[in-house]
Amino acid sequence: MEKMVYFFGEGKAEGNQKLKDLLGGKGANLAEMTNLGLAVPPGFTITTEVCTFYYQGKNSYPPGLDVEVDRAMKRLESIMGRRFADRENPLLVSVRSGARVSMPGMMDTILNLGLNDETVEGLARQAKDPRFAYDAYRRFIQMYAEVVMGVSSHHFESLLDQAKRRQGVESDAELKVEELKKLVAEYKSSVQRESGKAFPVEPGAQLWGAIGAVFGSWGSARAASYRRIHKIPEDWGTAVNVQTMVFGNMGDDCATGVAFTRDPSTGERKFFGEFLPNAQGEDVVAGIRTPMPINQESATPGNQLATMEQLFPDTYAELVRLYQLLEKHYKDMQDIEFTVQQKKLFLLQTRTGKRTPSAAVRIAVDMVNENLITKDIAISRVTPTQIEQLLHPRLDPRVEKKVVTKGLPASPGAASGEVVFSSEEAENYRKAGKAAVLVRHETSPEDITGMDAAQGVLTALGGMTSHAAVVARGMGKPCVAGCGAISIDYKKQLFTVNGVTVRKGETLTIDGSTGEVILGFVPTINSQVDQYFTEFMRWVDEKRGLGIRANAETPNDVKVARQFGAEGVGLCRTEHMFFEESRITAVREMILAETRERRETALNKIFPMQKDDFLAIFREMRGYPVTIRLLDPPLHEFLPKTEAELLELARLENTSVEAIAAKVKSLHEFNPMLGHRGCRLGVSYPEIYEMQVRAIMEAAGELIRDEDFQIEPEIMVPFIGALEEFQLLKADITKVCDQVLNKLQLKFTYRIGTMIEIPRAALIAESLAKEAEFFSFGTNDLTQMTLGLSRDDAGSFLPRYLEKGIYRQDPFVSLDQEGVGELIRIACERGRRGNGSLKIGICGEQGGDTSTIEFCHRLGFNYVSCSPFRVPVARLAAAQAALKSSSLN
Amino acid sequence: MEKMVYFFGEGKAEGNQKLKDLLGGKGANLAEMTNLGLAVPPGFTITTEVCTFYYQGKNSYPPGLDVEVDRAMKRLESIMGRRFADRENPLLVSVRSGARVSMPGMMDTILNLGLNDETVEGLARQAKDPRFAYDAYRRFIQMYAEVVMGVSSHHFESLLDQAKRRQGVESDAELKVEELKKLVAEYKSSVQRESGKAFPVEPGAQLWGAIGAVFGSWGSARAASYRRIHKIPEDWGTAVNVQTMVFGNMGDDCATGVAFTRDPSTGERKFFGEFLPNAQGEDVVAGIRTPMPINQESATPGNQLATMEQLFPDTYAELVRLYQLLEKHYKDMQDIEFTVQQKKLFLLQTRTGKRTPSAAVRIAVDMVNENLITKDIAISRVTPTQIEQLLHPRLDPRVEKKVVTKGLPASPGAASGEVVFSSEEAENYRKAGKAAVLVRHETSPEDITGMDAAQGVLTALGGMTSHAAVVARGMGKPCVAGCGAISIDYKKQLFTVNGVTVRKGETLTIDGSTGEVILGFVPTINSQVDQYFTEFMRWVDEKRGLGIRANAETPNDVKVARQFGAEGVGLCRTEHMFFEESRITAVREMILAETRERRETALNKIFPMQKDDFLAIFREMRGYPVTIRLLDPPLHEFLPKTEAELLELARLENTSVEAIAAKVKSLHEFNPMLGHRGCRLGVSYPEIYEMQVRAIMEAAGELIRDEDFQIEPEIMVPFIGALEEFQLLKADITKVCDQVLNKLQLKFTYRIGTMIEIPRAALIAESLAKEAEFFSFGTNDLTQMTLGLSRDDAGSFLPRYLEKGIYRQDPFVSLDQEGVGELIRIACERGRRGNGSLKIGICGEQGGDTSTIEFCHRLGFNYVSCSPFRVPVARLAAAQAALKSSSLN
Repeated sequence: MEKMVYFFGEGKAEGNQKLKDLLGGKGANLAEMTNLGLAVPPGFTITTEVCTFYYQGKNSYPPGLDVEVDRAMKRLESIMGRRFADRENPLLVSVRSGARVSMPGMMDTILNLGLNDETVEGLARQAKDPRFAYDAYRRFIQMYAEVVMGVSSHHFESLLDQAKRRQGVESDAELKVEELKKLVAEYKSSVQRESGKAFPVEPGAQLWGAIGAVFGSWGSARAASYRRIHKIPEDWGTAVNVQTMVFGNMGDDCATGVAFTRDPSTGERKFFGEFLPNAQGEDVVAGIRTPMPINQESATPGNQLATMEQLFPDTYAELVRLYQLLEKHYKDMQDIEFTVQQKKLFLLQTRTGKRTPSAAVRIAVDMVNENLITKDIAISRVTPTQIEQLLHPRLDPRVEKKVVTKGLPASPGAASGEVVFSSEEAENYRKAGKAAVLVRHETSPEDITGMDAAQGVLTALGGMTSHAAVVARGMGKPCVAGCGAISIDYKKQLFTVNGVTVRKGETLTIDGSTGEVILGFVPTINSQVDQYFTEFMRWVDEKRGLGIRANAETPNDVKVARQFGAEGVGLCRTEHMFFEESRITAVREMILAETRERRETALNKIFPMQKDDFLAIFREMRGYPVTIRLLDPPLHEFLPKTEAELLELARLENTSVEAIAAKVKSLHEFNPMLGHRGCRLGVSYPEIYEMQVRAIMEAAGELIRDEDFQIEPEIMVPFIGALEEFQLLKADITKVCDQVLNKLQLKFTYRIGTMIEIPRAALIAESLAKEAEFFSFGTNDLTQMTLGLSRDDAGSFLPRYLEKGIYRQDPFVSLDQEGVGELIRIACERGRRGNGSLKIGICGEQGGDTSTIEFCHRLGFNYVSCSPFRVPVARLAAAQAALKSSSLN
Repeated sequence: MEKMVYFFGEGKAEGNQKLKDLLGGKGANLAEMTNLGLAVPPGFTITTEVCTFYYQGKNSYPPGLDVEVDRAMKRLESIMGRRFADRENPLLVSVRSGARVSMPGMMDTILNLGLNDETVEGLARQAKDPRFAYDAYRRFIQMYAEVVMGVSSHHFESLLDQAKRRQGVESDAELKVEELKKLVAEYKSSVQRESGKAFPVEPGAQLWGAIGAVFGSWGSARAASYRRIHKIPEDWGTAVNVQTMVFGNMGDDCATGVAFTRDPSTGERKFFGEFLPNAQGEDVVAGIRTPMPINQESATPGNQLATMEQLFPDTYAELVRLYQLLEKHYKDMQDIEFTVQQKKLFLLQTRTGKRTPSAAVRIAVDMVNENLITKDIAISRVTPTQIEQLLHPRLDPRVEKKVVTKGLPASPGAASGEVVFSSEEAENYRKAGKAAVLVRHETSPEDITGMDAAQGVLTALGGMTSHAAVVARGMGKPCVAGCGAISIDYKKQLFTVNGVTVRKGETLTIDGSTGEVILGFVPTINSQVDQYFTEFMRWVDEKRGLGIRANAETPNDVKVARQFGAEGVGLCRTEHMFFEESRITAVREMILAETRERRETALNKIFPMQKDDFLAIFREMRGYPVTIRLLDPPLHEFLPKTEAELLELARLENTSVEAIAAKVKSLHEFNPMLGHRGCRLGVSYPEIYEMQVRAIMEAAGELIRDEDFQIEPEIMVPFIGALEEFQLLKADITKVCDQVLNKLQLKFTYRIGTMIEIPRAALIAESLAKEAEFFSFGTNDLTQMTLGLSRDDAGSFLPRYLEKGIYRQDPFVSLDQEGVGELIRIACERGRRGNGSLKIGICGEQGGDTSTIEFCHRLGFNYVSCSPFRVPVARLAAAQAALKSSSLN
């Protein structure tokens, strides 16, 4: 370590913006701002390398650090004309953390460091305001005691309350200096009592204590938790910034504030901020006093508060000059902290400002149009998550909410409706044109139509990857899952939660983005897809190489997908079409059939409906490819579960309940995930796949013949594990296709491909690819098998696995690149070796996940397919992946 | 195809033994024997390439075949001084199939070809025996009509019966020539009537019809079935052998027979065979007449029949000279077919003789000691399957048996089962999981699957070389043949024997080593291992590189494994110890415990029992390594299923049935195979693994300390899927190990390794191997996950998959080398990259499978682990794998 301390002040700094890794975001910014000639209080930064050394070397500092710090302190003293620990003219400093990326609230800050019983008197004399000095002193003691010595702030707060009661005053500001002096003494006794140590009087000791506390706080539980959530490596470390104190609370000609160079809510190009006269920065951030707008544009309508522009016109003008300078320099919207000390403006900090999703899009688009940034940079400035949030309705934040409990935020968006407890009831509501929220213990495939009919879904069981969650996300429907606090009584048609009883028909609101369950109706604000969004997505589409398709099977979903920009259907799950009430009977008849003939009779009933499905889907996706997966789930999924349903089916089928129950029993499987499903059904009952293929081909053929469509149907065989299996089924499918082409007297191209969802398929990809025209990675099943992890059962240990860091992410949400991804890599490599023109896509849940999309881009996939609502997210993620890889090349 | 026909005759042949692939086993042998100067009737072989051409090219012959056949026929005529189709001195030929490997009874044979109404008169004149000539003619018509024209033999048999009745005679031989002439006419009318075609009179047409029939029979269902069972590729094809007829039935100075150069039952070095005077070869094989011994050594004790040595002393002496020559030449036990025509000996065929498993071992050992073959060849001469059969149990001699009769001891071993009278029924029994003994007059090739399904076979007719005997020996299935005392009534589904009636479904026991037929069930004991076996296995162990361990957990199994030569325990499944009645209660208490404390209380009860288990196992395996797998199955496997058990548990646990039922329900999993099991339990409930590790270490430690054992316990963590998972558990395990070492004041080595049974573990093997000291492939689970195939549920489609050839073998029996094996290959490569000294083994079911063992050998595994009973089989397979790979290098 050559240099551990970087000085900034007097218009120049040893560091600059580029040294962000070394100096942290804040330190690099302070250096940069100093170099820019902005009025930054001088100070110095202790590098992140010292932090790393501190953690690697058992909490000790590198040799020579003390000498460098001393030298920097001397320089500060010389610039400010004050001396640290001087009883006449004391230098006071702040000590702050600063990691590479902003970790708001995570790291501790200490202000007014350098005060003790002697220097406080010097400060009082300098400021000509003993009250200010002692207020600063008592604040410093509290902050230092809390952060460095671990004394809980409530001790100080209760002493402060006692003092105010003694004096009969309401606010801190009304306390007299004598009272403050007494408080200081009481604070120090409290420190001694609670920590067993005296409060350090020597400013040098205070300084090193504070530096140690900043480094220590990097290892704190809450910082570690933040890093885990935001995937920040442990070894980045934090820097320590020591900076001369300036005071916004030295009197009425002082102030402190926070401003954004553009409106962080809307993105509008206007200077926007808040300030507080005679206050320290923490007062603004902490929200204890209501801040005032810096200008008229920042004022909420009807707000009568004076603005900074009015109260400090000259200082405000200087601030405007500075913000324009800053935005030009940083080429992004800035979040500025400033202090006015006796009318003189100091910039304490500038950083990239946080913004709402729609502001992010608008700022990106505006800045391109202002020639501030390129389109590539604009694309990288908006996160896929922001796009996702942008497209879901949100609860109006201005309305008060009665939150009764919180579950998992399983599918984003918010919805209100009357509570119903069955899918049937939800459908009745839809038919009646009423909004319903479906409340279930958990959902099953039979609930799909009910979920579709409801505005939102609330379940007591299940995690982020439960059936309800997955299906709801697929539908773009809000869902709160795993809400263990609710106790449902289906019989009485009610649920109780934290002492409240909610009956069928009562109105409930759920927020699938936060997991909140709210009593009554809460209005929502719809996302606006405005001209900025449209423009932005146009640039995104220009940039990306990956195709984006949707997983969709209902004509409505397909339409939505198309509206969201999907360039085809990547996965049309034909079995979902089987659950509709009008069809399930024929499907069950087919399953119960004991002979091929009877099975074919039932299939003949399903055929026209299936054909209609495909006609509708082809119409909605006109001009784009549609990949249709043949029947996949085990047959028992279609059979009834309840006594009443069994009775009904027995009546319809003119057979006994016992016979049907026996069939249900005979189809029972111990591990249905690994059982008689997918193409195994096609091998066992060729007539099922034949019916489906015929429906696909006739639908396509008739549109081609009669309506001049151009369709090349993509027929996808699920659950292939062996070459011979695919060859056998391909021969069957080809036969039917040729029959249809013959019958229609047509010639058009169709493609036969396979899902890669069984590990063995990935391993034999080379020979499979010689037969298959496309691969689509079914990463849901591939993950289950590669990890030996049943999605339906993982709930009992997955949370623990995530918590202990065994899995870094839920592998059903974001592809496990090391394991499953390795199989995919192998399959791509071998598949392309077998067939140079193989089309490759992904159609599992993870297909809409950002890092998965980047992974697919790197492997040269042709497309990713995701739920319709995630299509715009996927488009952006694909563009960003393209940007990232081109920047790597 | 350069040459399609290979001639042999006059002491030299165009082919030789090395052209077995081209000429088939029989054709190559005939060529070789001709070259050796043995008295082989001249003839020629049409190559297997013609057969392949025939099947690839839609049943047509390659151009030019007719010319080559004609040329060979001319040469035969010239050698024999007879002419084909000549009415004076006609040449007759046999037409036989001959594939690369012997497929007894599978392919059709036609004798006496060339006879018609004119040539038969010539034959009569030549043989000076019109009766012989017409008998040959009527046999030829029947055989040809049946094989070539598809006319069922029963038509001819009933005509023959009528003729015998007409004449009032008992045997065919008593029929006069006039009657035979009439029969010939009747036979031909019958052919015309049944087939709609005239019997071909032109010998050339007969020849081509017969050749076509041989090729056609390659594609017959029964041949295909035999190939499937014996894994013979379809494209090998069969050759056709056309050979001059010699007659064993031209009078009393003629004979035909079959002999083995050593006793095929015991392996004893004695010339052994059967013959029939005045008969054709088929009479011996078909088992219709009871044959006579060729010498005293071949006679069953008490047998009064004359021997060939007595009846044909000179010819017998010549036969002895030839057999010695043959065995020296082929260096293996030979199965010889011979015919004596007017006292002149002709060899029709020699081939490697089928033998019982114990004969195989003895012959191999004897031949090494006779300096005929090397030890390596001896090792390769015994199949692992034979070793397995050798160790099959035999009847307990101490148990009293109700022997009702005795037949020929046709295939050794003993079996009990319910009597069935058809192959179909035997298959039904197998499907129902019940043991059957198949009782038939005689067996035919169609019975092969039924014989395979039955535990043993009993026939009323046929000798030691009958179809039933040969096939049963090949299968290692007990068989009693030629049991003339039993009288079967297929219609009534019963047989009577010595006044006893035995009906279908009654239990019967047969002893194929003694020929005894016993009423009721007789317990069996393990076979005795003789000095030949011991010597042989000593050579085997010298040869092999792979270690052989056993999967065992009870002290008794471990003991048996050790006796069978296991060099350690490769998989000790600790959960099996939990199911014992005395323990299950404590295990359930542990599962029901709601707190860690209560769980630990229950675990403390299990601990001493678990420790005793390990003490016993270590003792039984003294001097060899023991790999102990920590708890693997999901906890719900240990919970009660029935109402009564629930009640009992509730009583024991002093809780409600509802509470336990709720727990059972909460532990329910949709796909338990992929659920909360294996090391996931170790992560969730660290105290379970801690108890197990403590038990292992204390048991090992006490034996080391108190009894001077040398043990290095191998602790195996199941179901690892992530590096972090293993690291976490390894840290836990190490902690407990260190505690125990500390407590016992000892230092000894222990190893911590992992199962590789989740595909992801194979993919991350490099990083895993840096942490793990050994890998053991759990191929049961690895197969389930890699193939997406639940072993418990595969029954509904696996048979169809095998039948359709989608899977070539049951992947749970023999490792799927292409898929699962590829993952294993990847894991080995990566694992060794991560850890050069990594120990690698396999402990799945497939660990005892021959081709799996060869695969493991090729990948350089340290050991395979299999069930105790398969240990000797695995030892041989490992030695053969070593031989095979050294021959490849």
